[in-house]
Amino acid sequence: MIDQLEKYGLFFEERALAQFQSLVRNKDYSKIAVLCDSNTHDQCLPGFLSQLPDLDPNKLEVVELEPGEDTKSLEVLAQLWDAFGALEMDRHSLLINLGGGVISDLGGFAAATYMRGIDFVNFPTSLLAMVDASVGAKTGINFGAYKNRIGLFTEPLMVGILPEFLDTLPEEEFLSGWAEMLKHGLIADAKHYRALIRRKPTAAQIDSALIAHSVAIKARVVSQDKHEGGLRKILNFGHSIGHALESWHQQAGQPLSHGYAVALGMQVELSLSAAFAGCDINEVQALQTDIQKLYSVPKLKPQAEDLKTLLLGDKKNKGSHLHFSLLRECGVGVYDIEVPMQSVLERYNQCFHD
Amino acid sequence: MIDQLEKYGLFFEERALAQFQSLVRNKDYSKIAVLCDSNTHDQCLPGFLSQLPDLDPNKLEVVELEPGEDTKSLEVLAQLWDAFGALEMDRHSLLINLGGGVISDLGGFAAATYMRGIDFVNFPTSLLAMVDASVGAKTGINFGAYKNRIGLFTEPLMVGILPEFLDTLPEEEFLSGWAEMLKHGLIADAKHYRALIRRKPTAAQIDSALIAHSVAIKARVVSQDKHEGGLRKILNFGHSIGHALESWHQQAGQPLSHGYAVALGMQVELSLSAAFAGCDINEVQALQTDIQKLYSVPKLKPQAEDLKTLLLGDKKNKGSHLHFSLLRECGVGVYDIEVPMQSVLERYNQCFHD
Repeated sequence: MIDQLEKYGLFFEERALAQFQSLVRNKDYSKIAVLCDSNTHDQCLPGFLSQLPDLDPNKLEVVELEPGEDTKSLEVLAQLWDAFGALEMDRHSLLINLGGGVISDLGGFAAATYMRGIDFVNFPTSLLAMVDASVGAKTGINFGAYKNRIGLFTEPLMVGILPEFLDTLPEEEFLSGWAEMLKHGLIADAKHYRALIRRKPTAAQIDSALIAHSVAIKARVVSQDKHEGGLRKILNFGHSIGHALESWHQQAGQPLSHGYAVALGMQVELSLSAAFAGCDINEVQALQTDIQKLYSVPKLKPQAEDLKTLLLGDKKNKGSHLHFSLLRECGVGVYDIEVPMQSVLERYNQCFHD
Repeated sequence: MIDQLEKYGLFFEERALAQFQSLVRNKDYSKIAVLCDSNTHDQCLPGFLSQLPDLDPNKLEVVELEPGEDTKSLEVLAQLWDAFGALEMDRHSLLINLGGGVISDLGGFAAATYMRGIDFVNFPTSLLAMVDASVGAKTGINFGAYKNRIGLFTEPLMVGILPEFLDTLPEEEFLSGWAEMLKHGLIADAKHYRALIRRKPTAAQIDSALIAHSVAIKARVVSQDKHEGGLRKILNFGHSIGHALESWHQQAGQPLSHGYAVALGMQVELSLSAAFAGCDINEVQALQTDIQKLYSVPKLKPQAEDLKTLLLGDKKNKGSHLHFSLLRECGVGVYDIEVPMQSVLERYNQCFHD
């Protein structure tokens, strides 16, 4: 499984370091900048650089940002473009995104648009970034009230996965990535879901093989539909409600992690799956029970009316209709399911306000 | 020649209108927004819309910007993204860029990055935009002191060329496009250059066939090298010095048109062509005389030292070396010619300060 991912540009452990070093040798970059946040700067950068003794220190630069979703803004993007200029980066420079999804989304977009595009590679440091942002070529920033409103489909030259970074991850961050792994199982591989749900979500219970299995599901889907014209939409299971919750909690000053929001979204969308995608109601309830054990509903949550406004701004909704990606059964996702707003709000209230 | 350009997505006159209408019929867009500046809003938009009676007025929106290079800024880009949101444009919406290069560069970049990319088409209204911005897929904005610092290679779905727009163009704008046409002749087709230099640069002397001939030169070059790894660089003849002059005059509050700046740049780069690319000195002097008749050196101009700073920030310069695209002879461009900064400044002073 791990080897098969190399054709998608994903490399694990020693193979990742070797691939990166060969890239740097071949390309003779004018500058190499590492983008990190203050957490990955302290916890990941020293270990990372110590494994890359061949990097020319005269070409190496480090750009450090504040951690957190607020960094994925137009203001920070402009600061980053400015920093590239100040470091005299040119078309022959390389950016290394060393961090979670915020760093790779923002850094990838900044690199892809600086001088009409410079090379970049991703070394994800969070579980979420390893299993989710590592494939799919999505980059971008939040804009106005909406997540990822501005962005691009653009591929890093490679993604290097070093599971050692997971040892430093806070539990909440770990649970966030775990939710996306569960989702991969739910939409495309019931066995993977069951393998996950039997384990405790901790770094000790995870290895490259399990990560690779989860990533491979996403990579297969994305390779069949790069620009989300069809099949790729199944990856949005849990995300219509999840993104709305994430935006709302962000604005309320009590941010939810992305995966936690998706896990909550999956609970509501499982209920919609029973009503609109023919998913067996007993299966739905069993899955909801599994997920609730790990991801309980927070006390602070939006009213149905608040949710409605956010749902109408979602990129997936064509005109004023609501479209969902749901489950036909555990392991089988379906997409482009039209659902009346009223039903969405009712199911949300049943799951969250009863 | 005109028909051959259709494979590059360029359509002329009635064929352009027909192609556009068929696109709109097939795609069933949720919204269609026309981006223009206040000049094209008044002088081009009414005639344009009157030829498209099938457009659904309920889906049509118009976004109007200030004319001029200052519009190609991050601030206006953010306003445009905001406007798309306010107009409820979604992934299934279309943007029509109706204007010169500022509108298609900014509008194309805004469309390509809004919701990770929506459809856009260009209807260039200036001669420069018809012969230059219409092919090559470059979009972007100015940032800091540098032109086009932020941007993308991204293709419009089609480009429609309606030469009727040229009748409303001020002489200065006409000369700007004419300079790029001369450049196309100089770098790749001596006959085209001679055909142009015999004519007066006015709308009455130009037709779709002449425009198509010039565009075809650029289209052929770009199709062989989309991302400017090699051959495409010959299109930069006149642009290293030209861009620096353009930036400097912009900051000095006396903007030069792009083509005028390129024509001035070509005069200096012709001189460099004699010294560094083996171009015959008599030919160089004859060409310089031709060009000077149309594009005289302005009184206000930078000192060599000011130019130096700007040249060092140019995207084409790898590290601290200067690279030029020059002529081997009339009709034959060459690229990646390394030139010492000192020689550039000397030739600049000879041409401009003697």
